[in-house]
Amino acid sequence: MLNFVFNNATKLIFGRDTHREIGGLIRERAERILLHYGGGSIKRSGLYDQVTSSLREHGVSWTELAGVQPNPRLSLVRRGIDLCRQENLRFILAVGGGSVIDSAKAIAMGVDLAGDIWDMFERRLEPQTALPVATILTIPAAGSESSYNTVITNDTTQVKRGCRGELLRPVFSIINPELFFTLPHNQMAHGVCDMMSHIFERYFTRTEKTDLTDGLCESTLKTIMRNARILNRDGSDYDAWAEIAFAGNIAHNNLLGLGRMQDWACHAMEHELSALYDVPHGAGLAVITPAWMKYIHTKHPEMFVQFAANVMGVGGSARASETMALEAITRLERFFAELGLPLTLGALGIDDAKLEFMAKRLTGFDGNREQRIGNFESLGWEDILAIYRLAR
Amino acid sequence: MLNFVFNNATKLIFGRDTHREIGGLIRERAERILLHYGGGSIKRSGLYDQVTSSLREHGVSWTELAGVQPNPRLSLVRRGIDLCRQENLRFILAVGGGSVIDSAKAIAMGVDLAGDIWDMFERRLEPQTALPVATILTIPAAGSESSYNTVITNDTTQVKRGCRGELLRPVFSIINPELFFTLPHNQMAHGVCDMMSHIFERYFTRTEKTDLTDGLCESTLKTIMRNARILNRDGSDYDAWAEIAFAGNIAHNNLLGLGRMQDWACHAMEHELSALYDVPHGAGLAVITPAWMKYIHTKHPEMFVQFAANVMGVGGSARASETMALEAITRLERFFAELGLPLTLGALGIDDAKLEFMAKRLTGFDGNREQRIGNFESLGWEDILAIYRLAR
Repeated sequence: MLNFVFNNATKLIFGRDTHREIGGLIRERAERILLHYGGGSIKRSGLYDQVTSSLREHGVSWTELAGVQPNPRLSLVRRGIDLCRQENLRFILAVGGGSVIDSAKAIAMGVDLAGDIWDMFERRLEPQTALPVATILTIPAAGSESSYNTVITNDTTQVKRGCRGELLRPVFSIINPELFFTLPHNQMAHGVCDMMSHIFERYFTRTEKTDLTDGLCESTLKTIMRNARILNRDGSDYDAWAEIAFAGNIAHNNLLGLGRMQDWACHAMEHELSALYDVPHGAGLAVITPAWMKYIHTKHPEMFVQFAANVMGVGGSARASETMALEAITRLERFFAELGLPLTLGALGIDDAKLEFMAKRLTGFDGNREQRIGNFESLGWEDILAIYRLAR
Repeated sequence: MLNFVFNNATKLIFGRDTHREIGGLIRERAERILLHYGGGSIKRSGLYDQVTSSLREHGVSWTELAGVQPNPRLSLVRRGIDLCRQENLRFILAVGGGSVIDSAKAIAMGVDLAGDIWDMFERRLEPQTALPVATILTIPAAGSESSYNTVITNDTTQVKRGCRGELLRPVFSIINPELFFTLPHNQMAHGVCDMMSHIFERYFTRTEKTDLTDGLCESTLKTIMRNARILNRDGSDYDAWAEIAFAGNIAHNNLLGLGRMQDWACHAMEHELSALYDVPHGAGLAVITPAWMKYIHTKHPEMFVQFAANVMGVGGSARASETMALEAITRLERFFAELGLPLTLGALGIDDAKLEFMAKRLTGFDGNREQRIGNFESLGWEDILAIYRLAR
C-alpha cells in the first residue's frame, strides 16, 4: 500500500425526500446563490419547482444559469464566472448530473482566479481558490457530487481536460434515488458504465498488497452489476437506484483508490472520443474499456485472474490465466450489451478517419516525443491507436 | 436502505513516516496545545521524542497530560478539562490508541461546556461544542481516530458510557503502520476483535436491501481476518498492519453502517464487563460475540447463512441454515483462539457473581420496567443474562 491522504469533505445527504431540505441547508451558508442546471428535465419532473420553493421558503435568492450540456462547455463556464462576478454570488447550487456539477466546479474555480480558467485545465493546475458548491444529483454516474474532479470541454478547440483539487469537493450533496425514476434508460446505462470505469481505473494497479481496497473495489463492482440488472428491468426500483447511486458515489470519492497507483488511460482515451464526436462519456467507456483489456491483459495475468474470479465470477484454473481473462472480458461485454451499451466505435458512429489523430493528440506526439498515458500499463500513441482499432 | 447523512470530516494521513509531519500540521491550526497520552510506551518507542521535536521545530508549545489508562477514566478527563481552561489551550493532540483519543474527545467536549461533563454521557446528549482534536494512532482498534464516538468509564460509579456527535470526529489523524511493530501481541488481537465487532454491530441488521454495505462489511471482515493471521506470525509486517489499520478505520467511521439499522448489543454487554472488571474491551468482545450469535442465530437464519457463506467461507445448503450458522460461529471462535483471545468469561477471570447484576443494570431494570438493548435482536435483562451464561 502506498502512503495516502484522504479527506472527503463532502457531506452526503442520502434518501427519500432529502432534496426538500435544500433551502435550509443553503441558508446556513449563503443568502444569494447561482442556481446552475441543464435544460428542461428538472422543470418537467417538478424538481425545479420543489427546489426553488424551498429556497424561497428559506429566504435564499438566486440567479439562474441554465443550459449545461453533456460534455460541459468552457463557454458556459465563462458566462457563469462573469455572472458570479457581476452579481457578487459566492455560492453555487448545481442541480443535475456530472456535467452540471463539473460546470459548477469550474465556475467556482474561476470567480476569484486572476488568470484564465482554461489555463487551470490545460496546465492541470491545482485550484487555490473556489466558491463553495452544493449539489442535488439527478443522474448517478460521474461521482462528481463528492469527487475532487471536474472535466470541461473547450468548445473552441474541441479539447476535453480535467482539473482536480480538494477544494473542488462539494460542501454537501443531496442524493435522492427517487429523482432517478424518470431517467431515460440509456442514461442509467451510461452512468453504470462510468462508475464501473471509475473503479476499474483504480482497481487495475501495479501496486502490490492492496488487500482492503481490492476487496472494496470488487464488492462495489458486483453491487453495481447486480443492481443495474434490476434497473434494466424496472427503472423505478428505489432500492436498486439507492445501491447504484451510493456505489457511484464511493466509486469516485477516491476511497477505493487510496494507497494504490491508479491508471486512468481509459478515461483519457474516451475523452478524445467525446471531445471530438460529442458521444456520451459512459457510452465511449463501454467501447474503450473492453478493447483496452484485450490489448493489455496478457501483460498482467495475475490481476486479470483476480478480476475474472472475484468480480466476473469466472471459475477455472489460474494457470489458464488467458482463458479466464478472455472469459471475464467477454462477460463484461455481454453485461454492457445487456444494458444496451455500444461495444464498437462503429456503434458510436465513429469511423477510422481520426483514430491516429486522436492517439497522437492524446500523447502530445510531435513526431519525436510523446507523453505516455496510463500507470497500470503505460501506453504510447501506437498502443492507443491499436486499442482504438481493437474497438472498431 | 434507510436515509442517511454522512460527513466524515477527519482528514486521514496514512503511511510511512507520516507522524513526522505533526508539527507542521498542528501549526496550521494552533500554537499551544494539550498533548495527551498514556504511559511510557510512546517514550520507550521514541515516538514521544519524534513528536515533541516536530512540535518544537514548528514553534508549537504544549502542556502534557499523561496517564490515560485502558477504559479511560472520567477523573482524568476532569483534570484535562481543568488544565485546558487554566492554560487556555484550544487544541488537543492525542498520541495513543482508542483510550487516549476517547479521553481527548471527552476533554474537548468539556472545556466550553457549562454543565458537568458526565451528564453528557449519562444522558447521551450530543455535544454542541468541542475543541478540535488531532491524533497520532498507536493502536489500530477502536477506530476513534475518525469516529464520532467516545466511551468513558466513571471511576467513581464503575459505569461505562458512550457519547457521540459529529463534533467528536478528529480534525486529522495520522496512521503510520510502522508505529505498530512494537505492540504486544495481545493488543493486536484485542484490536482485531474490536474492529470486527464494529463491523458486526453494523452488519447484523433487520434493514432489507443493503447490498453495497453488506458487501463492504463482508469484504472488510475478510481483509481483517486474513491480515490478522499474518500478524499472528509476524508482528512487523508493514503491509498487514497497513491493511488492519485502514480496515479498522473504515470499520468505525460509519461508512459501513450507512443506511442500515445497527445493533450495538454486544458492545453494551461488553461495556458492563470492562466497567466492572476492567478487562480489555477487545477481549471482552471475543467472549461476548460468539455467545450472542449462539443465542440469536435461529431467529435470523438468512442473515447467518449470508454471514457463514460470504464471510466465514462456509459452504453448504442454505436450507440447512442452522448447520451453516453453527459452523460459522465455530470458525469465528477458532479464529479468536488462533489469536490467543479468551473465549469464556472464566478465561477473563469473571465468575457468576455479578452476571445478573450486570444484566439488570444494563437495561436499567427496576423490578418492573427495563430498557431493552439491540436493534437486530432486541434483548431484555433475561436475554442478556442467558448470553452471559452462554459465555461462561
